[in-house]
Amino acid sequence: MTARTSSMESVSFPPLSRVAVCGGTHGNEMTGVYMVRHLQKEKIDKIGSVSVSTVLTNPRAVEICRRYVETDLNRCFTEALLNSPVTDSSPYELRRAQELNAQIGPKGSKEAMDLIIDIHNTTSNMGLCFIFYSIDWFTLHILKYLQSKMASVEVRAIQLDIPIAEAYSLESVGKHGFAIEAGPQPNGVVRADIHNMVKEAVDHIFSWLQEFNSGSTFEGGEVEAYTLVKSIDYPRNPVTGEITAAIHSQLQDNDFKLLQRGNPIFMSFSGETVKYDGEDLYPFFVNECAYYEKKIAFHLARKIKLTLPPIKVTG
Amino acid sequence: MTARTSSMESVSFPPLSRVAVCGGTHGNEMTGVYMVRHLQKEKIDKIGSVSVSTVLTNPRAVEICRRYVETDLNRCFTEALLNSPVTDSSPYELRRAQELNAQIGPKGSKEAMDLIIDIHNTTSNMGLCFIFYSIDWFTLHILKYLQSKMASVEVRAIQLDIPIAEAYSLESVGKHGFAIEAGPQPNGVVRADIHNMVKEAVDHIFSWLQEFNSGSTFEGGEVEAYTLVKSIDYPRNPVTGEITAAIHSQLQDNDFKLLQRGNPIFMSFSGETVKYDGEDLYPFFVNECAYYEKKIAFHLARKIKLTLPPIKVTG
Repeated sequence: MTARTSSMESVSFPPLSRVAVCGGTHGNEMTGVYMVRHLQKEKIDKIGSVSVSTVLTNPRAVEICRRYVETDLNRCFTEALLNSPVTDSSPYELRRAQELNAQIGPKGSKEAMDLIIDIHNTTSNMGLCFIFYSIDWFTLHILKYLQSKMASVEVRAIQLDIPIAEAYSLESVGKHGFAIEAGPQPNGVVRADIHNMVKEAVDHIFSWLQEFNSGSTFEGGEVEAYTLVKSIDYPRNPVTGEITAAIHSQLQDNDFKLLQRGNPIFMSFSGETVKYDGEDLYPFFVNECAYYEKKIAFHLARKIKLTLPPIKVTG
Repeated sequence: MTARTSSMESVSFPPLSRVAVCGGTHGNEMTGVYMVRHLQKEKIDKIGSVSVSTVLTNPRAVEICRRYVETDLNRCFTEALLNSPVTDSSPYELRRAQELNAQIGPKGSKEAMDLIIDIHNTTSNMGLCFIFYSIDWFTLHILKYLQSKMASVEVRAIQLDIPIAEAYSLESVGKHGFAIEAGPQPNGVVRADIHNMVKEAVDHIFSWLQEFNSGSTFEGGEVEAYTLVKSIDYPRNPVTGEITAAIHSQLQDNDFKLLQRGNPIFMSFSGETVKYDGEDLYPFFVNECAYYEKKIAFHLARKIKLTLPPIKVTG
């Protein structure tokens, strides 16, 4: 594997000179909100060779400290929705998505930001986690770089296998982009440990961008990622739809630990244990607050290895 | 101290035969919501000698999974508010408080519930904590009993020194009553560990009630409690009012650990540490989500010892 990797031809790209750092796409996920506000207060619009746009993406949801006002903004960035006609009576977030697309996209155009980083929080114990769509060498090289630099944190990545036209989240309007999920952190709360972890990651990302733009070659290699296989809902009362069980204590906080047939996954409020009955997979977004309404108790993923070519800036 | 305690005369009270178990006073604190729903589904209206009323106290807030709809229900139970005229345009929670007062009070009357237990959650690391107003022998005896039964959990109590007429929370409408705070748990999330802890506590409380009603004498003794001294707000931008610092990692999750002069309390988003500059006190409700809008980063308490008389049911 290593031999094949090192024999991969290096690929080159133009510099990444325009980067957007976004927060508040979900108005109650506070790390991004406070990070963007701080960068804006300090009027930071350039870091070395990179011009930086900081965007508080859903200001109305931030104002009321809720995930969204009318609909989940981070599901509004498909090509279909970005190109749909809107009126004053369209949901606020759909109108805002089109504004954002004009500001830091448009999606698929040469005017779009070179890189979009959107900062999210989760109530799940996911540590620091990238979420990305297509196999993008930048995202994977930055991931590999963070893994080498942040020894005290396990930096992971989840790949959603969705064509870019159907990719629904903010970062998909950039030429490149990924979301950062950081947790566990309750909605509406800012924790210094999570804040510091994300701040350190963002600082390393900008170091990587400086090195890349200045001509360094980043060696190829392998990185691991998780690909979504399926989602599991809570047990529910068939009449009322109310959930009748909580995530089992043995699964709670154990995101990315292999779930095997027979492991407990739920504990009903009357005290019965529900066991897992499927193929061995990796759980993530375990007991994420916002996914109760989406009828997701946790996702399950397969672990994959991705081989990267060496990467450098165009000559 | 022990000598004086054991010499205290025993006090006797009528049986506690009508108890209300309440949840959902804050609609996004899920332990109480799911516990009440489960008791209602199981149609549990009597446990031994005790008739049990289960009340989902703020159903509209539960429905939308928010702390409240228009105003904080758990600030509506002062005598002044309970006796204020209401119309259809009064805040929903004020009208609901008066309904609840009629249902499980009225406050200060002989028709009121003998005991009201209101189940809350906090995002703070407070474990299992009673909150009570006046020195009430029942609350303190039950606290002492739980401390002896729940070896794996530190059960604490906070006393708010407020006259009963001005006591603002739901449990104050009962002849006796206390709130249970359980955490840490994010708003809108149910965690099995927190659920099990509270369920175990409620089971022990009903065991105590059976023993008391059936004539057992509970020995006197000493219990510790915390009394609120003052509240500390986050550092804020004087113009916008936005917070400019997070709870410091050394204070986060350290509820009830003595805070001493010079200990770090905040870390600003630009990286500066703010140190504590007051008398040695015990922090609690550290980084509680709902208290951002109340401008409280944490409370500070003094530890006190309370001496209890032996207690038994009236002859």
